[in-house]
Amino acid sequence: MNPSHTITFVGAGPGAADLITLRGVKALQTAQVVLYDALIDHGVLAHAHPDAIMVDVGKRGVGKRCAQSKKQSAINAELIRYGLQYERVVRLKGGDPAIFGRLDEEIDAVLSVGLNYEIVPGVSSALAAAASAKTALTRRGVARSVRLLTASVGNDQPDNLWHTHLTPSETLVFYMGGLHRKAVAQTLLDKGFDGDTPVVMVFGASWVDEAVVRLDLTRMASNDFTQSETDAPCIILVGKGLRV
Amino acid sequence: MNPSHTITFVGAGPGAADLITLRGVKALQTAQVVLYDALIDHGVLAHAHPDAIMVDVGKRGVGKRCAQSKKQSAINAELIRYGLQYERVVRLKGGDPAIFGRLDEEIDAVLSVGLNYEIVPGVSSALAAAASAKTALTRRGVARSVRLLTASVGNDQPDNLWHTHLTPSETLVFYMGGLHRKAVAQTLLDKGFDGDTPVVMVFGASWVDEAVVRLDLTRMASNDFTQSETDAPCIILVGKGLRV
Repeated sequence: MNPSHTITFVGAGPGAADLITLRGVKALQTAQVVLYDALIDHGVLAHAHPDAIMVDVGKRGVGKRCAQSKKQSAINAELIRYGLQYERVVRLKGGDPAIFGRLDEEIDAVLSVGLNYEIVPGVSSALAAAASAKTALTRRGVARSVRLLTASVGNDQPDNLWHTHLTPSETLVFYMGGLHRKAVAQTLLDKGFDGDTPVVMVFGASWVDEAVVRLDLTRMASNDFTQSETDAPCIILVGKGLRV
Repeated sequence: MNPSHTITFVGAGPGAADLITLRGVKALQTAQVVLYDALIDHGVLAHAHPDAIMVDVGKRGVGKRCAQSKKQSAINAELIRYGLQYERVVRLKGGDPAIFGRLDEEIDAVLSVGLNYEIVPGVSSALAAAASAKTALTRRGVARSVRLLTASVGNDQPDNLWHTHLTPSETLVFYMGGLHRKAVAQTLLDKGFDGDTPVVMVFGASWVDEAVVRLDLTRMASNDFTQSETDAPCIILVGKGLRV
């Protein structure tokens, strides 16, 4: 192996081709190989050099098609294989690499064969969802912190106890929230959250078919809103500081 | 007033000129007026059109020079003044606009005179700090959520009780953490966090004089590390899922 070989983990942003950073674009333009998640938009991939080897590693996150996702171990193996062969490999990850992307396991794989790595941060889906909903996530005296969490856990993982340690004075941001939305809302109500606590669900933030649905916890718990099932990832914002 | 006038809140990213999004660059290139925080780097401002009116609104966040910051009410007044006069005004905010930037108050100001607004998300400092520290913020089974918080509160605000509702299975990200670092660490220890819990302090994430300091809670509480005082904003990451 050659120690000059570097894997660059790049945050693709939420989907729109123009919500990647300039540094991310440059990494794509100079990469010999780009390993990308299945949900990455073609507009983002178009920033890559025409001669780059483009590898769909198939990861779709948690959703209807989750079962079709490649195993993480297979992704790690591809990172190692291309990383050993090529000097400049980009691992393009949706949103920001550091948030709910199993980056840590991919770093372990890269380090296990002595390769270098660096990280180019991206716009995480939470921030894109807030922008689409035209709301802040913090508000003085009302929403004093922001919690990024998920109610989804892998089949091999115990309950992640997201519902402990809650406080109504922060904004909750649920990643991959679509599947569990009803149960999440009911749990929050059971924990004493007010039924009129504002909720914003953002499907496919920044995508062309983006949908922003504004409701409250009571309606979220009753599933009383019209938004058809979709493969688009869903971010759910909950909190008294939201603008609805 | 003209309803076609739009204020675009743009996330500048953490500082480096190439960590702004393509959409953010385009907004800067087409803006007639750019109202920017004092901590925004000149490299980012250079994306603006040469003929644009550049207005330093002086906001520095919480730090040594905080006392020199302009009052939020003065910033709101400038937003209104320029927004009524010009069609395309960019309000350029450090990091992402939705996180700890008092965006909500600025939106209220904009709406109070019937102007439109939109938000272009950015790379929040937490994500830039993680990238600089080459670590993920989540790890399966260990760091199952991420909490963005601050131990700083305005003089007119009561204690924000950031230290309630803590759980060791999440990564804590303290914005504007420099001033309160010793007290924060002691509080976490008092709450039962292990002394060897990893800590990464990132001063000026993505700036040319960026400094990454890796320690643990015990050392953070004793202030036992060599990092001279700086005006650079400091992000503090705390959690068992961090790579140190």
